[in-house]
Amino acid sequence: MEMEEVLSEVIQRIRPSDEERAFVKGLMEELRTIAEERIEELGLDARPYFVGSLAKDTYLAGDHDIDLFLAFPLETPLEELRKKGLELGKAIAEKLDSHEIAYAEHPYVRARYRGVRVDLVPCYDVGNWRDVRTAVDRSILHTRWVNENLRGRNDEVRLLKRFLKGINAYGSEIYVRGFSGYLAEILVIKYGSFLDVVEKADFLLRQKIIDPENWLRKEPEVALKTVKRETEEDRPLIVIDPVDPRRNVSANLSWEKYGRFYFKSIEFLENPSVGFFFPPEKPKGSYLDELRKRGTALVTLLINVPDMVDDVLLPQLERSARGFERTLEREGFGVLGWDVGRKGRAFIMLELDRERRERVKIKPGPEFFTERGRDFYRKNEKVWLIGKRLYSEKLVRESVVDVIIELLEKNQVSLGKGIRDAIRRADILLNYVPKELEEEAYLFLSREKWNIKG
Amino acid sequence: MEMEEVLSEVIQRIRPSDEERAFVKGLMEELRTIAEERIEELGLDARPYFVGSLAKDTYLAGDHDIDLFLAFPLETPLEELRKKGLELGKAIAEKLDSHEIAYAEHPYVRARYRGVRVDLVPCYDVGNWRDVRTAVDRSILHTRWVNENLRGRNDEVRLLKRFLKGINAYGSEIYVRGFSGYLAEILVIKYGSFLDVVEKADFLLRQKIIDPENWLRKEPEVALKTVKRETEEDRPLIVIDPVDPRRNVSANLSWEKYGRFYFKSIEFLENPSVGFFFPPEKPKGSYLDELRKRGTALVTLLINVPDMVDDVLLPQLERSARGFERTLEREGFGVLGWDVGRKGRAFIMLELDRERRERVKIKPGPEFFTERGRDFYRKNEKVWLIGKRLYSEKLVRESVVDVIIELLEKNQVSLGKGIRDAIRRADILLNYVPKELEEEAYLFLSREKWNIKG
Repeated sequence: MEMEEVLSEVIQRIRPSDEERAFVKGLMEELRTIAEERIEELGLDARPYFVGSLAKDTYLAGDHDIDLFLAFPLETPLEELRKKGLELGKAIAEKLDSHEIAYAEHPYVRARYRGVRVDLVPCYDVGNWRDVRTAVDRSILHTRWVNENLRGRNDEVRLLKRFLKGINAYGSEIYVRGFSGYLAEILVIKYGSFLDVVEKADFLLRQKIIDPENWLRKEPEVALKTVKRETEEDRPLIVIDPVDPRRNVSANLSWEKYGRFYFKSIEFLENPSVGFFFPPEKPKGSYLDELRKRGTALVTLLINVPDMVDDVLLPQLERSARGFERTLEREGFGVLGWDVGRKGRAFIMLELDRERRERVKIKPGPEFFTERGRDFYRKNEKVWLIGKRLYSEKLVRESVVDVIIELLEKNQVSLGKGIRDAIRRADILLNYVPKELEEEAYLFLSREKWNIKG
Repeated sequence: MEMEEVLSEVIQRIRPSDEERAFVKGLMEELRTIAEERIEELGLDARPYFVGSLAKDTYLAGDHDIDLFLAFPLETPLEELRKKGLELGKAIAEKLDSHEIAYAEHPYVRARYRGVRVDLVPCYDVGNWRDVRTAVDRSILHTRWVNENLRGRNDEVRLLKRFLKGINAYGSEIYVRGFSGYLAEILVIKYGSFLDVVEKADFLLRQKIIDPENWLRKEPEVALKTVKRETEEDRPLIVIDPVDPRRNVSANLSWEKYGRFYFKSIEFLENPSVGFFFPPEKPKGSYLDELRKRGTALVTLLINVPDMVDDVLLPQLERSARGFERTLEREGFGVLGWDVGRKGRAFIMLELDRERRERVKIKPGPEFFTERGRDFYRKNEKVWLIGKRLYSEKLVRESVVDVIIELLEKNQVSLGKGIRDAIRRADILLNYVPKELEEEAYLFLSREKWNIKG
């Protein structure tokens, strides 16, 4: 298929129809009216702003969640903003279908209205980056900057976002670490079109620093500090936020996700197809066949975690998996890989080189001609020398499940803080997973989960 | 048992009887006569010297091999010394019971006479260390020095030699790396008695340098060079040869053997017994039980080696075992220990953590954004990223025997030079050894072979 054909077919599928557009527009007007009424009723000095992809008209067809920000004057004390902002959010949400309180840096209201998710988020009504006080305050500036600079290239942003979704590199959440929507918008604004961006997958990495608003000239001190900090953190890209020189827009972008973008861009240009944007489903297979074929062992911990959002849970699971990896390697098991997630219960899967280790463990001791050497000699039943160093051996547990239980009892695995106790009470399964994890186990063991060429 | 009782009982057993003494003396006189006659018959300018423990009267009862050195004038060219020396040796041996040619730095005659081994070794008739030309030349000087300095402490040397034999630390051969007889003599001469030496096991190590003839004062430049060289080689002791400041008498003494001496000395002083000098036999057991108990795997290579003395063969086997250790560890097997030796055929035994590894091997690749990264991506079917680095995997052989065969075929194990081809043709046995190696396998696996406390 020719490139042009591919892009026009994709655009057909991702550009919102006139109908959807009208529906969304109506919804936004309705919400604005409700918000303004409620503000007046409550006698508040606040202004409603629509932000996010809807406000920038860069949303993908069918993906029209609404972000309505409730901006208070800068003079408002933070405590008051929190309290009044939540109050106002609730008051608005009462007119909608349903709502709950959600928590980020400060609490906000997550409502539903006519099938659409509506987030009602209190923030400060900032004029520029010097006013920014909370993490969400920049959103108004972002929306404004994109709208001022996009100049009709909305569908190019849509293409890039859909491409990033298709190759599994979209989303700046801490457990995704991909490209954010705002980053996609900046890249299109800076380089011109979807294809221009994709063609620069290698160039961007080499250029490293992207500074669309020339902050390095306008605010060299602040911007250079950002560059220095982010260089030290070894980010793949440093995109100085057009609305705030202190911030790297791609601070959360991981090398893994950039790598996907890198190879998929090359492949797409060589051989364009709709499949990059709408990939076929991952292949299905049996994790038990996979285990047999690989001659490895699968240990799964099933964890009842406390009420926790994925943003918090997943990094903790990752940290814990890394703890198991380190400790089990020290205990003589080879860890070929691990996988974490939540499917009902949270889980940690570990692929090991074997399910039982040898029963005997060689204990290296100190040099023999020392106080500690004489001690080691006295205390061990069998002792021998290799060079100056004493050695002995001890019998240890064989089965990896027994080993894990013992390590957890002795508190020898470095675990994520919030889930430490939950992991200690986890069920430990060997070469078996419950029905709902069968597909995950297959994708993990076969590496199709991460296979860039898959 | 009291110390005195122990020592006197041991002396009873190791001091040659008057009968043995008379027999040996007669033998030596007879040999001297034969040698002198032959020298005259052949018209040679050579002198016979008895050297070794018989000549120093420090031999253990029943252990009376004879070393008869045939010393030629310093002016004799080396080639002539070799030729005439061997000729003379053969001429002497014709009067004895049997003989063969043996090889060290130069060939010599190994004969038997009335049940006693008689080595007939050509050498130079050196007056002091500056004359020394071949490795054996010093023996005459050693014998003279010991006889001049021992002053009746012959039985103390016998005690020390027997103690070192009992704790398996005697013999300076390259595959033993223990205490030589000459070293034992020097220690007794320097420190006074067997007990004096044993009490200094820790002190000697700390003092490090022993210089009975004050070479560091008499020949500081030469002696300091020796100290420097041997310090760099990290020897447990530096004993400047009383007859040659260029030489460390204990250059071949390993840390392992010194460690045995160290601990056994402590134990002997705490709890003296005849058992240190005449240890009970090593315990017997089943290597198969041991394997089961340890949950490990035993791989044995049976090697048809060419005609080779142990001095040459055993270091080559050790080097090869170390080669297998390194390579197998790289291939994912844990090597808990190895053992080499010769019982009919030569053997290398390896104790491994398992007999089959996982079938899949993770292949770390280069960073993704390089030419090599793009190559790696192209060439592998499955590719994923961890950080900047690409990974893939491949299927590998499972059984350790298959792995070893493949490694040998691909020439990927570092092997001892002289036995490389023999090892490539070795039989490889898994968890089984032939009858004649059963005891060795047990001693190895149980570590009783090296257990200092055993």
